[in-house]
Amino acid sequence: MAGEFDFIARNFRPLAGPGAFELRNDGAVLSSLPGEEFAISTDTMVEGVHFLPNDPPGTIGRKLLRCNLSDLAAMGAKPHAYTLNVTIPRNGRYSKSWFDAFSQGLAADQDQYRIFLLGGDTTSIDGPLVLSATVYGRLKIGTALHRNSAKPGDGVWVTGTIGDAALGLQVLQGKLHDETGFLANRYHLPQPRTDVPLYGLVSTAMDISDGLIQDCGHIAQESGVSLHINAANIPLSTAAQQLGESVQALCMSGGDDYELLMTCPPQNESALVDAFRLHGIMISRIGEVVPGSQVRVIDAHGHDIILDKIGWQHF
Amino acid sequence: MAGEFDFIARNFRPLAGPGAFELRNDGAVLSSLPGEEFAISTDTMVEGVHFLPNDPPGTIGRKLLRCNLSDLAAMGAKPHAYTLNVTIPRNGRYSKSWFDAFSQGLAADQDQYRIFLLGGDTTSIDGPLVLSATVYGRLKIGTALHRNSAKPGDGVWVTGTIGDAALGLQVLQGKLHDETGFLANRYHLPQPRTDVPLYGLVSTAMDISDGLIQDCGHIAQESGVSLHINAANIPLSTAAQQLGESVQALCMSGGDDYELLMTCPPQNESALVDAFRLHGIMISRIGEVVPGSQVRVIDAHGHDIILDKIGWQHF
Repeated sequence: MAGEFDFIARNFRPLAGPGAFELRNDGAVLSSLPGEEFAISTDTMVEGVHFLPNDPPGTIGRKLLRCNLSDLAAMGAKPHAYTLNVTIPRNGRYSKSWFDAFSQGLAADQDQYRIFLLGGDTTSIDGPLVLSATVYGRLKIGTALHRNSAKPGDGVWVTGTIGDAALGLQVLQGKLHDETGFLANRYHLPQPRTDVPLYGLVSTAMDISDGLIQDCGHIAQESGVSLHINAANIPLSTAAQQLGESVQALCMSGGDDYELLMTCPPQNESALVDAFRLHGIMISRIGEVVPGSQVRVIDAHGHDIILDKIGWQHF
Repeated sequence: MAGEFDFIARNFRPLAGPGAFELRNDGAVLSSLPGEEFAISTDTMVEGVHFLPNDPPGTIGRKLLRCNLSDLAAMGAKPHAYTLNVTIPRNGRYSKSWFDAFSQGLAADQDQYRIFLLGGDTTSIDGPLVLSATVYGRLKIGTALHRNSAKPGDGVWVTGTIGDAALGLQVLQGKLHDETGFLANRYHLPQPRTDVPLYGLVSTAMDISDGLIQDCGHIAQESGVSLHINAANIPLSTAAQQLGESVQALCMSGGDDYELLMTCPPQNESALVDAFRLHGIMISRIGEVVPGSQVRVIDAHGHDIILDKIGWQHF
């Protein structure tokens, strides 16, 4: 592989936007509009932990961006820009053509989400590929959504379908079968729900990255409430349903959904439904906030469902 | 080791500042003051590449912050805040007490540079420790310094002494000896020159991270000029001088100095000297900008010095 400077010029200079100085500086400049501030999310993905060595290279950078964009969506921020740190294995497993596809994937998502590259760093490692991105979103000052303001009486809502990515990982590992490719695609390319401005509509929002039930636990803990989840109302994709009832627990505990989990006061529910319908995004009411300090998952007969594993711990 | 959430609460929650929401969100908020914008620098350090496995844990996070603060200083920005991504080897080599010392080091530099933690991510790896930090500095809008405005007639200046960190690495590797510990300390704890506001004083600035001569090459290339460096004027520490003339080439090509390299119009030279003197920081005029497109290093007799290696490539 050519030197660092050529590598940056080839793969990343075409992605650079305003304030990046064509990546010719060691730093970049980030400026907010009057009345706005930035929301920041940062994530690291490690080969073999957060993506598979054989995942399509064009999806890996996109997944990294989208995990962060999903966090920003949950804060109510509009996508703006990102920095990228790439730590490359020294054994040469990642070729020039691999990085061509990787950066083409980034370019596609830059178009889709209207973001640009601000800067980054490239380093080498005797180990797996490590990617970190820090993504910036724009907010009206003081409008960031949090997890600590769910109130008894609020409904619990999610976007899209739940569990597909966890099932997709099992498909890619050969443990489940899905001829359609739908589930694997949901693992490779999450769909962050960046289109709907949530401020003023919901009482809390977060993205589902550690698993639905564990993430419900985060809202319960931070807000000092209980969440009661009706398992029958958790939206499953057709592909997930075709795998049978045995995968339901995994759908509730599996990570990597990057759908939104929201609590919404009753008086805002119809406005919430309308806002997502405008963008063609399905949302589902899966439960309600009640006084207490736990998460209960209840089946169609009103019995508690006990999960062996409630979610994903990063180590 | 306990789970991710306990780990973050123990090591990082005490470091969190305004906009970090006690690290209870997946995102943070970054707000600029009226008339200001942010300078951003991001760096990754990999165990065995950018630091040694046996380096004191209290210095490793500080070095990462300081590398970035040095970039921000070169842009003319004031230290503000940072995000931190920590990717931890799964073999348990890094213990609770190691991370106690690591985060105490971060706390010390937060005090010293008046910065705070905004957020981050923790992940695991079958491989070496990988750390990425993105550091934010504040700037008056439009005052960021660049590398492309050096003009013939400008002087070439550096802060501090050059080459100590490269020599310090050799000391730590047992290839050189320095009883005083000065050189090893310069490798472990760079001194970013964040105190002096450079805007209006210098024509270009960058920090010396890849080696003095290579970094002179960056300014030459971006500004479309030649830099003539007088080797005899390159400031060497007493510890470096005591190692003899044989280390001079390494001082010019070695990386990790994190001193400032600046070009300054003649009419600003005395103001520049005064500004650094006010903060007790030595600066030295090591050469001049002339028409052309190269870097020449000249000895005391006016002869060119040819270096085998001009600097550091990251892979």
